[in-house]
Amino acid sequence: MVFSSYMVLAQEHPNLILTKRGVEKIRAELGKVPLFDASLKIIQEEVDAEIALGIDTPVPKDYSGGYTHERHKRNFLILQKAGVLFQILQDEKYAVYVRDMLFQYEALYKDLPVHPKERSYARGKLFWQCLNDSNWLVYVSQAYDCIYDWLSKKERQQLEKNLFRPFADFISTENPQFFNRVHNHSTWGNAAVGMIGLVMGDEELIQRALYGIEDDGLDADAKDNDGGFIKTQGKAGFLANLEEPFSPDGYYTEGPYYQRYAMYPFLIFAVGLHNVKPELKIFQHKDSVLLKSVNALINLSNEDGDFFPLNDAQKGMSYYSRELVTAVNIAYHYGGSDPRLLSISEKQDRVILDDSGLSVALGIREDKTESFKKQSIHLSDGPDGKQGGITVLREDKLELVFKYTAHGLSHGHYDKLSFMLYDEGMDVLQDYGMARFVNIEQKGGGNYLRENTTWAKQTIAHNTLVQNETSHFNGEYEIGSQHHSELYFYDVSDKNVQVVSAKENNAYPGTKMHRTMALLSFEDFEKPVVLDLLRVSAQTENQYDLPFHFLGQVMKVNFDYSSPSDLGALGTDNGYQHLYIEGKGKPKTKNTKLSWLRNNKFYTLTSVIHKNDEMLFTRLGANDPEFNLRRDASLLIRRKNSKNTVFVSTIESHGSYSPVSEFSVDSNSGIAELQVVHDSSDYTAVTIENVEGKVGLFILSNKNPLKDKKHTLTINNKNYQWTGPYHFIKTKQ
Amino acid sequence: MVFSSYMVLAQEHPNLILTKRGVEKIRAELGKVPLFDASLKIIQEEVDAEIALGIDTPVPKDYSGGYTHERHKRNFLILQKAGVLFQILQDEKYAVYVRDMLFQYEALYKDLPVHPKERSYARGKLFWQCLNDSNWLVYVSQAYDCIYDWLSKKERQQLEKNLFRPFADFISTENPQFFNRVHNHSTWGNAAVGMIGLVMGDEELIQRALYGIEDDGLDADAKDNDGGFIKTQGKAGFLANLEEPFSPDGYYTEGPYYQRYAMYPFLIFAVGLHNVKPELKIFQHKDSVLLKSVNALINLSNEDGDFFPLNDAQKGMSYYSRELVTAVNIAYHYGGSDPRLLSISEKQDRVILDDSGLSVALGIREDKTESFKKQSIHLSDGPDGKQGGITVLREDKLELVFKYTAHGLSHGHYDKLSFMLYDEGMDVLQDYGMARFVNIEQKGGGNYLRENTTWAKQTIAHNTLVQNETSHFNGEYEIGSQHHSELYFYDVSDKNVQVVSAKENNAYPGTKMHRTMALLSFEDFEKPVVLDLLRVSAQTENQYDLPFHFLGQVMKVNFDYSSPSDLGALGTDNGYQHLYIEGKGKPKTKNTKLSWLRNNKFYTLTSVIHKNDEMLFTRLGANDPEFNLRRDASLLIRRKNSKNTVFVSTIESHGSYSPVSEFSVDSNSGIAELQVVHDSSDYTAVTIENVEGKVGLFILSNKNPLKDKKHTLTINNKNYQWTGPYHFIKTKQ
Repeated sequence: MVFSSYMVLAQEHPNLILTKRGVEKIRAELGKVPLFDASLKIIQEEVDAEIALGIDTPVPKDYSGGYTHERHKRNFLILQKAGVLFQILQDEKYAVYVRDMLFQYEALYKDLPVHPKERSYARGKLFWQCLNDSNWLVYVSQAYDCIYDWLSKKERQQLEKNLFRPFADFISTENPQFFNRVHNHSTWGNAAVGMIGLVMGDEELIQRALYGIEDDGLDADAKDNDGGFIKTQGKAGFLANLEEPFSPDGYYTEGPYYQRYAMYPFLIFAVGLHNVKPELKIFQHKDSVLLKSVNALINLSNEDGDFFPLNDAQKGMSYYSRELVTAVNIAYHYGGSDPRLLSISEKQDRVILDDSGLSVALGIREDKTESFKKQSIHLSDGPDGKQGGITVLREDKLELVFKYTAHGLSHGHYDKLSFMLYDEGMDVLQDYGMARFVNIEQKGGGNYLRENTTWAKQTIAHNTLVQNETSHFNGEYEIGSQHHSELYFYDVSDKNVQVVSAKENNAYPGTKMHRTMALLSFEDFEKPVVLDLLRVSAQTENQYDLPFHFLGQVMKVNFDYSSPSDLGALGTDNGYQHLYIEGKGKPKTKNTKLSWLRNNKFYTLTSVIHKNDEMLFTRLGANDPEFNLRRDASLLIRRKNSKNTVFVSTIESHGSYSPVSEFSVDSNSGIAELQVVHDSSDYTAVTIENVEGKVGLFILSNKNPLKDKKHTLTINNKNYQWTGPYHFIKTKQ
Repeated sequence: MVFSSYMVLAQEHPNLILTKRGVEKIRAELGKVPLFDASLKIIQEEVDAEIALGIDTPVPKDYSGGYTHERHKRNFLILQKAGVLFQILQDEKYAVYVRDMLFQYEALYKDLPVHPKERSYARGKLFWQCLNDSNWLVYVSQAYDCIYDWLSKKERQQLEKNLFRPFADFISTENPQFFNRVHNHSTWGNAAVGMIGLVMGDEELIQRALYGIEDDGLDADAKDNDGGFIKTQGKAGFLANLEEPFSPDGYYTEGPYYQRYAMYPFLIFAVGLHNVKPELKIFQHKDSVLLKSVNALINLSNEDGDFFPLNDAQKGMSYYSRELVTAVNIAYHYGGSDPRLLSISEKQDRVILDDSGLSVALGIREDKTESFKKQSIHLSDGPDGKQGGITVLREDKLELVFKYTAHGLSHGHYDKLSFMLYDEGMDVLQDYGMARFVNIEQKGGGNYLRENTTWAKQTIAHNTLVQNETSHFNGEYEIGSQHHSELYFYDVSDKNVQVVSAKENNAYPGTKMHRTMALLSFEDFEKPVVLDLLRVSAQTENQYDLPFHFLGQVMKVNFDYSSPSDLGALGTDNGYQHLYIEGKGKPKTKNTKLSWLRNNKFYTLTSVIHKNDEMLFTRLGANDPEFNLRRDASLLIRRKNSKNTVFVSTIESHGSYSPVSEFSVDSNSGIAELQVVHDSSDYTAVTIENVEGKVGLFILSNKNPLKDKKHTLTINNKNYQWTGPYHFIKTKQ
């Protein structure tokens, strides 16, 4: 069956990622395209060094971070590169290296049992999970394609019969719980099976990759290691994976960290399909969602190119990763040559060695680069774009990320209406990210740590409201994954008044939350002021905790607090067991202030406070015997016995300090008073007064977000009229 | 009296820092020396902006960080620059600006009382302490010199009579407790009085500056705010300040942070003396100690140019500071044009606008720059170089700083035989530095915080031995300032085996400490291994604590420990009251291991441990209600009921992690076993075994450090013979 379909589809190779024609073009330009030549040189040195070391395909035994895992991972990355070098340099030593290693794998794989480590819901053979086996095949398919024509037919038959086809079957039909899902794991599996199918001309594998396994026999309630459901309404295969997790704006529901990870198989398989099956028009699929997703991903990085750590995400991952080099190159080549992408490639300072990398390098050589100025952006979530979304408000190097998405599959965290704030690429109010040290074997085999569940996923770990010390949706995936927040409105038409507003009605049954965040530019302030307006309406009395996870050194507060001599935990569950209480305060004034220093810049949080509110300084680290968590600080506003209430705060970035000149500039908050001057079910209004007595007034329509709706409101005997969901005026008193 | 001496010394101006001839040379080169021209442009923009803002000389009221303090500070910096611009650009607007501001100061100063803030032992008038008033005069003397000839005689007389002479008298004869000391404060005072004396041609002031006030009437036991003695055996004046705190190697006993601060008045007054009183040969004084001190200072900075935070020192201060721009320029111009200094100037990317800055800019223009490769160095302490010292061992971007100095005057900390370790410019085992936020008003007026005394100065805050929970010298300045450690030997002749060894016999009466630290390079290790060998001999049984203040995230330990549910303080005094106990462990094996991740690199501390030793994980922050301290971690080895004992550890820098590629490389320690194979009063011997079983043997002669001394020793029936204080062999077992 395999060989019959092979005969039908026989084509010249390479034809998967590299093509005969592409290779000719690359060879014609060699030595004349600086960035391509430099990238080629680095890869050649890397591969030559590996060839000199000799081939090692050890019997699998380790988790990630361990030797056998890292060796096999390195092998597939090098194999892919060696294949490309053979095509571009036409030096047989690379083909020999690829062939010899493939035959070692063929010998190893024939009788290889499932991997000895038992933790995965879908154990692999070379690696502890099918996911990594799929990584291997995605890369190795490319290597095989590069030496396909150079191998004898007999050699090909031996490899395909003993290695590639059984390998593809193992990660698909033998592991449907891994292969037949809507999940980044399956995307890798689909791409792996599809790519080797394209090289082998195996139509059965290609169909399986595109549309999934028909009868997988899976239980509808089955879950994976991360607690995510296996089944998604019977959807499976590459096209379903393209359909489901991407919104029409290109936002990937798991968040940018996993989008980055998934982008590689999405795009590289798409290129293969584009080359071998152009009739699928894969890059045009769903209004070009694949190309849009690269744009979305770049927009979800901060000033330095680091991705915002939404949901499970390791901090520090950025558009400098190898996956993004590929993504940017492919998006440029197949997506209309957006010259702004070239500026990202220039920062990455390397290209991939194929048609798209050559395109990019040529674009740069021809000085086509334009700067990629990231603007404020709203990205919808959900397959149809109707499951909330993400907004990034940007101005003057401030970046405010506001989350009102769907759950984000098994890697989602339970926080709705949370935010994080960056200034010049540094997080000032942080999202913790995940509790995991990816690939560091010493830390739980490089896998998710217990504290990812007990802390990082819990709502208290995020800058959003916690009711009665429980997480949103009670921290239950079954509930959380059924709901999403709703965008109320997003308006950045005036860059001096950028506003986003969203509602969440399901996180706590009986309680409705409505949060509005704005970046307001005033002449008297160096940087825009963040306004945070959170309304809560509840059917019962509750305790509300609003944490601000500030990073840096406390400079000053304007309230008294007691400091315990011994530190105890704030609570017993839902993340509270990880927080020590470092201070407990009572407000003396109508506004509390906290100033802190971060990255040699000053920040001040000013909050409208109620008489009985408690201010809690907390420190992460309780019940963390293995030092898996960072010892980060937070300030928590606690309001007890409240039904309906409103939390209003501003955050200022002001001034700077230099430990070299020892100059301290503008180290004090510029806000004299923050006041709620009106609050009803229809409208909420807030004044911001600076030290010179000038005032800004912000009015929000709580019920009607329509742009053309006319409003009138009387506050303190003064009449205000406006159109649209909010009204902002700057005035002198 | 003033005006009589004035008539005698009358000279053309400028003649202090700028000279008539120098200005002509600068003007001839304008527009042709890139670095000079760029520096000029920046300063011109800065001064023009200030001129546009207008002059403000507010009535003094604030501490540092407050408006009046920062305004007057800015004024003197700008005045000096405006004076220089007038000379170089010959644009009268700068002279007008200087004159107008000087007359505002003249009007303000006439009836100005002492500064309202009362904290200082020597209150100033413009500022809260005479120190800052002296800063003002050092800079303003230069501005006055620049417009001296441009002013009318009447204007000069008015300024000198009402402002400069009273100002100079106030900070000297009226504040002898400030002026007549050996201390960086007095150096500023001396330079201030001397420089205005040189400009005014006032020989009385010049003599006072050079030799101090004869009869100061000060109490021999008087102390300043920092707890330092006022009197130093009757020594005073600029020359005594040059004599006393500098060792013959140019090490300044307070440490590099304060050396940097003091260098400016030392050097700038020296240039003035060089120009006006060349017969003093000030730059040749004490075997050219001023020029040597610049070299010492550069050598006391890490890979990134940040000074090692010895004694009171704010982290982050570096050779990029304005004081070091001046120092490097002057050292180049007056010190034989060392081309390596040009590489520092290139990094600083600016020069001062005078003869020396021009020299440097010309040197760079003419491509004379050579790289400044910092090597291992030993710098003696004490006026005669016989009061211990400092060693920096350097290899492969590792920098080990070992302290065995004298106390370092009032800014000294009580730790002897302490060390800190840097790797690629980051501290891996830290010295806390000082508990102060210089010039940040919110934090205790920018002054020293209580925690500087209760934590930062205490011995437990440093990586050295603490006996019975008390600091060295019982934390008493009167005792500590009478003693110093002794260098035992320093040998870096073999760059693969760099060793320094020192003894301390006075920190704890009845207890002798001998610590030897080495950087050992092995073929099988990526970076040199730090060997730390600390022998203690005591007359009574004691409790010993050896802390390792590691920075970063714990990766792995090889011992069990219990984690308390509530955190309590480790002790009640001497710094112990600031440490929480996060874990309490008992060793299971002969070696304990702690691995941690810092700046994406892995480190492992391996220690030879005794059966009853305790391992304590501590966290800074107890009894710190104002969040003045960082929440840093430490590991403490506690050994109870011991007389004579030896602590042996190694520290490895190994491998790396990338959050972008997520590759974890070489994350495990390479050391299999560390063993004390011999320990007697004469010799201590240690073996280091790596995972492949290869062994290094290090033998130390405990009693005789002579280079040509021959030794023989039998260990495990094997005979060793060598010459010199240590023996190191690499061998296979």
